[in-house]
Amino acid sequence: MIIPEYNDVLAAYERIKSYIHETPVLSSNNINSISDAELYFKCENFQKVGAFKFRGAMNAMLTISEKYPDQLKKGVATHSSGNHAQALALAARMMGVKAIIVMPETSPKVKVEAVKGYDAEIVFCKPTLIAREEALNKVVEEHGCTFIHPYNDPRIIAGQGTAALELTNRINDLDYVIAPVGGGGLLSGTLLAIGGNSSRTKVIAAEPSGADDAYRSLKEGRIIPSVDPKTIADGLLTSLGELTYEIIRNRVDSIVRVSEDNVIRAMKLIFERMKIVVEPSAATTLAAIFENPEIFKGKKCGLILSGGNVDLERLPW
Amino acid sequence: MIIPEYNDVLAAYERIKSYIHETPVLSSNNINSISDAELYFKCENFQKVGAFKFRGAMNAMLTISEKYPDQLKKGVATHSSGNHAQALALAARMMGVKAIIVMPETSPKVKVEAVKGYDAEIVFCKPTLIAREEALNKVVEEHGCTFIHPYNDPRIIAGQGTAALELTNRINDLDYVIAPVGGGGLLSGTLLAIGGNSSRTKVIAAEPSGADDAYRSLKEGRIIPSVDPKTIADGLLTSLGELTYEIIRNRVDSIVRVSEDNVIRAMKLIFERMKIVVEPSAATTLAAIFENPEIFKGKKCGLILSGGNVDLERLPW
Repeated sequence: MIIPEYNDVLAAYERIKSYIHETPVLSSNNINSISDAELYFKCENFQKVGAFKFRGAMNAMLTISEKYPDQLKKGVATHSSGNHAQALALAARMMGVKAIIVMPETSPKVKVEAVKGYDAEIVFCKPTLIAREEALNKVVEEHGCTFIHPYNDPRIIAGQGTAALELTNRINDLDYVIAPVGGGGLLSGTLLAIGGNSSRTKVIAAEPSGADDAYRSLKEGRIIPSVDPKTIADGLLTSLGELTYEIIRNRVDSIVRVSEDNVIRAMKLIFERMKIVVEPSAATTLAAIFENPEIFKGKKCGLILSGGNVDLERLPW
Repeated sequence: MIIPEYNDVLAAYERIKSYIHETPVLSSNNINSISDAELYFKCENFQKVGAFKFRGAMNAMLTISEKYPDQLKKGVATHSSGNHAQALALAARMMGVKAIIVMPETSPKVKVEAVKGYDAEIVFCKPTLIAREEALNKVVEEHGCTFIHPYNDPRIIAGQGTAALELTNRINDLDYVIAPVGGGGLLSGTLLAIGGNSSRTKVIAAEPSGADDAYRSLKEGRIIPSVDPKTIADGLLTSLGELTYEIIRNRVDSIVRVSEDNVIRAMKLIFERMKIVVEPSAATTLAAIFENPEIFKGKKCGLILSGGNVDLERLPW
């Protein structure tokens, strides 16, 4: 297992910076006053494809292209119904590489259309983990293409860490950085970026109480799979991978479990006061502050707003 | 009637620039591709109080303070249930001046709370124009405070023009600038700013078809009052004033009437693709492009997104 380090995040940033958006860091006096803390929101909802996932996908594609250019000739593949699918599809298109995305046949039409919009080929499968993996294996076998895992991959992790790198390049002396945790790619990258950059900053993870497998994994000292998770934060349903587990367990300050009510309250407050569209997964970071106001009182905190891909027909309030 | 000019917009900008946000100018490849034009969105939804109105209110307050400081001792007043109420309340509070806002007793609670949140005093009245004016006159008489009209005031107009000034300082060689028109303060200010700054740029106004009194006023050559307007663009219900009418009729290129369907489509597209929250009035600018794609095809257009104060419980889709 190759564990990426701070230098890999720096190298990823040099590699991808001309392809990504440097997303803004926004603040809200009103939300600061409500939360009694000094908050800096890193707005990955403004990233290409509307989520941080593009950073990791682009870093993976460029790294392969540098080291093993021949590998890309037969294309890349992944399974995802979410932001990673769009991210890989766009990164592949930008490099003139074919992307094949395995998606459950139950995926919302809007997500299927989004992936098609980036010219990826879609292979549908039954909506189970086994069917997904089988379909992916078949694609890889038939086409000889390269599988890019959504998070359990050092190149993906290093790429995701560049969001926190940009944040700390802009805002000094943060007491805390809060990132959501699902599969752990963003959280792992954030831990690498912060660990190297400014060691006095603590990294806290935000995880929905109804999908708290990462919390339980750290508590029990082994990866607990996410079984039947229940949360509106649809980006945070997956289990940790071996690599993300290894990075997270050694470095994260704590994992704060957040209620659905606090996620919804945080999400609505971000819409109302900051005038930006975020997905529920992003709002878990502010929800973590609502859960434990005493920890963050008067503190300077960076919050990674992971993305803004939300179904506007079904806002949760 | 004192008609403000380009220099007044420049002077307003010097006066207010340390009090306002320089709001970002955003673009979306996707919306450019849908509209077949090159669009630059001036995001006044990120302005203080969530709307351009703060620019005019701040300019009015600072101008009075420079010229007649004694006038402010007894406070300022206005009638408004919308963004101007909040803007004046905040501008007054920032200068330590008392503000009294006359609001219809039917105003949504959220708007009343917002004005109270800026420490203004609220006087309720019956929801008719006559009751509003009577209540305001009584307030002015009793307290000796200064009435600040929402738009028919040269200081307000010059202040609103600073949004377009910032836009053209950032983006050169625009073919068109599109601004919504209600009472005409923003449109008038935009016309002054553009007229002086870059004469080859044409200014187009966007007006809901169900509240097209400005369109009809220009056609008939006199101010047609807005009677029983029907539109979700609740910032655009008012009639032109004498001053705004005078400025607009001589300088605007055209007024494009937009359907409710196009306003809703534009608003949703801005949420979805740009990940920002805008109010229906702001979306009329993009709706104007949907109404007349042939005019804007291949053109470089600046769109003034007037604000982001929208009831998230009642989004129109």
